[in-house]
Amino acid sequence: MQTLNDHLGLYTDFYELTMAQGYYFSGKKDEQVTFDYFFRTNPYDGGYLVFAGLGEVLRLLKHFNYSDSDIEYLKKTGLHPDFVEYLRDFRFSGKIISMKEGEIVFPGEPLLRVEGNIIEAQLIETMLLNLLNFQSLVATKAFRIKHVSKAKTFVDFGLRRAHGLGGIHASRAAVIGGASATSNVFAGKAFDIPVSGTLAHSWIQSFDDELTAFRTFAEVHPQNTVLLVDTYDTLKSGVPNAIKIAKEMEAKGQKMIGIRLDSGDLAYLSKRARKQLDAAGLNYVQIFASNQLNEHVVKSLEEQEAPIDAFGIGTEMVTGKPEAALDGVYKLAECDGTPRMKISENIEKVTLPGKKEVYRYYDEEGFFFRDGILLANEDPNEAEYIYHPHHPEKFTQVSHLKREKLLQVVYDNGKLTDETPSLAKIHEYLKTRAALLPSEHKRFIKAHIYKVGISKNLYNLRCELMKKVDSKLCQTEIKPN
Amino acid sequence: MQTLNDHLGLYTDFYELTMAQGYYFSGKKDEQVTFDYFFRTNPYDGGYLVFAGLGEVLRLLKHFNYSDSDIEYLKKTGLHPDFVEYLRDFRFSGKIISMKEGEIVFPGEPLLRVEGNIIEAQLIETMLLNLLNFQSLVATKAFRIKHVSKAKTFVDFGLRRAHGLGGIHASRAAVIGGASATSNVFAGKAFDIPVSGTLAHSWIQSFDDELTAFRTFAEVHPQNTVLLVDTYDTLKSGVPNAIKIAKEMEAKGQKMIGIRLDSGDLAYLSKRARKQLDAAGLNYVQIFASNQLNEHVVKSLEEQEAPIDAFGIGTEMVTGKPEAALDGVYKLAECDGTPRMKISENIEKVTLPGKKEVYRYYDEEGFFFRDGILLANEDPNEAEYIYHPHHPEKFTQVSHLKREKLLQVVYDNGKLTDETPSLAKIHEYLKTRAALLPSEHKRFIKAHIYKVGISKNLYNLRCELMKKVDSKLCQTEIKPN
Repeated sequence: MQTLNDHLGLYTDFYELTMAQGYYFSGKKDEQVTFDYFFRTNPYDGGYLVFAGLGEVLRLLKHFNYSDSDIEYLKKTGLHPDFVEYLRDFRFSGKIISMKEGEIVFPGEPLLRVEGNIIEAQLIETMLLNLLNFQSLVATKAFRIKHVSKAKTFVDFGLRRAHGLGGIHASRAAVIGGASATSNVFAGKAFDIPVSGTLAHSWIQSFDDELTAFRTFAEVHPQNTVLLVDTYDTLKSGVPNAIKIAKEMEAKGQKMIGIRLDSGDLAYLSKRARKQLDAAGLNYVQIFASNQLNEHVVKSLEEQEAPIDAFGIGTEMVTGKPEAALDGVYKLAECDGTPRMKISENIEKVTLPGKKEVYRYYDEEGFFFRDGILLANEDPNEAEYIYHPHHPEKFTQVSHLKREKLLQVVYDNGKLTDETPSLAKIHEYLKTRAALLPSEHKRFIKAHIYKVGISKNLYNLRCELMKKVDSKLCQTEIKPN
Repeated sequence: MQTLNDHLGLYTDFYELTMAQGYYFSGKKDEQVTFDYFFRTNPYDGGYLVFAGLGEVLRLLKHFNYSDSDIEYLKKTGLHPDFVEYLRDFRFSGKIISMKEGEIVFPGEPLLRVEGNIIEAQLIETMLLNLLNFQSLVATKAFRIKHVSKAKTFVDFGLRRAHGLGGIHASRAAVIGGASATSNVFAGKAFDIPVSGTLAHSWIQSFDDELTAFRTFAEVHPQNTVLLVDTYDTLKSGVPNAIKIAKEMEAKGQKMIGIRLDSGDLAYLSKRARKQLDAAGLNYVQIFASNQLNEHVVKSLEEQEAPIDAFGIGTEMVTGKPEAALDGVYKLAECDGTPRMKISENIEKVTLPGKKEVYRYYDEEGFFFRDGILLANEDPNEAEYIYHPHHPEKFTQVSHLKREKLLQVVYDNGKLTDETPSLAKIHEYLKTRAALLPSEHKRFIKAHIYKVGISKNLYNLRCELMKKVDSKLCQTEIKPN
């Protein structure tokens, strides 16, 4: 294969091309459509999702086109040569209307809307889902870790267990969620993330003894000495040897940064190691910990007051374990001005028709209270109530509440409408937003469900479309107030 | 960021570079080392792993070097400029000794050995782990699906839920495991995999009614008509409309390939749909099924004799759910001729020192019986028994059994020693090997553990090295027979 290059038009499912060819030959190619990206279930049994990946979608969209060799390849797949030739000049010329990257979002609401001709909007589906689903999954995991590690820092160590080249996006998302650095050098360069790392067991093992291994490392890296202390025996060998080296460094006017624990019971070992270090007058030497950490282990370590200064987090974060995937989907909402929807035997899977906006309503104390989905052509001032999407007898008055429009145009006709924020800025935004989310939505066990409602007009539009298919499908239209 | 290009030297963890700089400045850079790649736990509670990813490791190894811009970047990370300049001409010049891709392998045995100078062997660690861990995880999942879907085909549909760019490696591994095609066009081109796909709900929704949507698709794609029948109501609308179109196609001398079910109870719906199709004389129209499938659902559908002809498999396969990661590691085994190992408080995590070979022993009926790990300098004819790695009182006589050496040199001094096999050939190899694995290791529930032993010499070498650290660590050396 060629490695990824500037032509990403093949970063798609074949059926997008088959459909595009169908639109091309059936006279539909200039139809203007709206697709919504949304997800159905909060990952990790949690109460929210961190929306991430937008910056990558926007960056890669500009490369979503076809090289000569791609065109040649596509002609061999059975697609019609006239259609394939049409792709030679393909560029996404539509509009992306999106939540900000780093936003706290909830199931069922459109996080991003694509407007364009039916071919371009269809072809970018797979790449968009691939980038947003994965990065949102990982950013959410990372932020859950950040939430419980509080002021302590953690570093992304996951590349070796990440999914192939997906590791680069895992690191990006980890930093959005709160990782302060990464071991992944490729991502470090690509996304301007601080890189971090000192030594593995192999360094220690390559010497005849641990003390020489430590001493040599400290000599070569006096500014960056973090010694891994569990190659032989953590408390009997690793920590005592690290203390010797710290003292030798002191004699040269240098300061060891820390030690790293990578196995065993981290609460027990960190407490013992802290005592040994402190007894030697080395209270400035920090303790780093790694080894199969996740938000639950970090939370437990914090509760046990383990004297750990920073965490290295790998596998579980970069793979979004145990979910491993976010169930985000991309559904047609409108076609040439006509609202469209998908009916389903499962009521929860019925989609919301039409072009829509999402508003966030605040409670009196300034916290997030409800999200409301309205039709884009509705005046939000006139939406007095928002309704449960499937049980309209449940509703909330919102007309008196402060509200905020969440979707903004971010890409229009081949151009970004604004500069893409840095990862650090995205994380800052996430922090300010998460601070406005009531804590009951952030707990790990049976998180309180944040309610997302729909307007009366949207409810009734959907009802009308369902009735066209089968009059029994919607029997409770909402009456005017 | 730049997308991936021909310079992959940054596809690594920063600590590999920090250590490499340490080796460089401490006079160790020409030391010759051996590292082993192995894993510790079979994924999915299964009885084996399918070894995959080797072809990608070997292909990308040739690109593991640094561009001018990489060099410039590395100088800004705090690494020493002299060391960074040394990297400018870096090429992996060592040797890779490996199992064949597609081999059936087991926990604890070296699947691949790297021999080279300590810097090159260290720097490639992360990329090697990243590629092998993930692809082996997915190939194993795919083969479990193949195992229960038997003669039926299945297609990889997973790109939208795969981990960013890792989707390309997911598709490669899926085909090794048994997928006959992929929806992933990028992977299709890169790895010469047949691509497949027809239409999504959005196609149907973009028309005023389902029948027109079906008819239009059949007109544009008469050779590739597979109609998705669940947009409105599968049995009342989707299947009847598909039957109408199939009849219209017959009148034109065309044949519809099939229908696809993508929601609801697939066993129930496939049986009903089959009856409707057959009653209309359309017994040649196939039924395809997708929607959150995995090996357990496919097995259940087969047991229920659901008349499904082919499966589309996505999320669970390409993410290796629920594991999401394989725990493969890369450990130093020898340094300038001296065997090295890592001690651990967890006896299972103690590594095997020295350069080693793996032999597979066959039972009288020609099935796989035991794997044995011997020191590379041992004459396998003289290894009469192999021993449990931690309980030497358990051993097996192997000297009378047919045996096979599993590790072969595949890369030497910048060159492949043989052509890399196609994915189809790798899958064929896997099939022949899996046929030799007794069925009790292939079942899904409490799979029988395949035993991997070590030679007396290896056991005693490890014992000797452990005693050097602490005389109590190994007290039961194996006596000569």
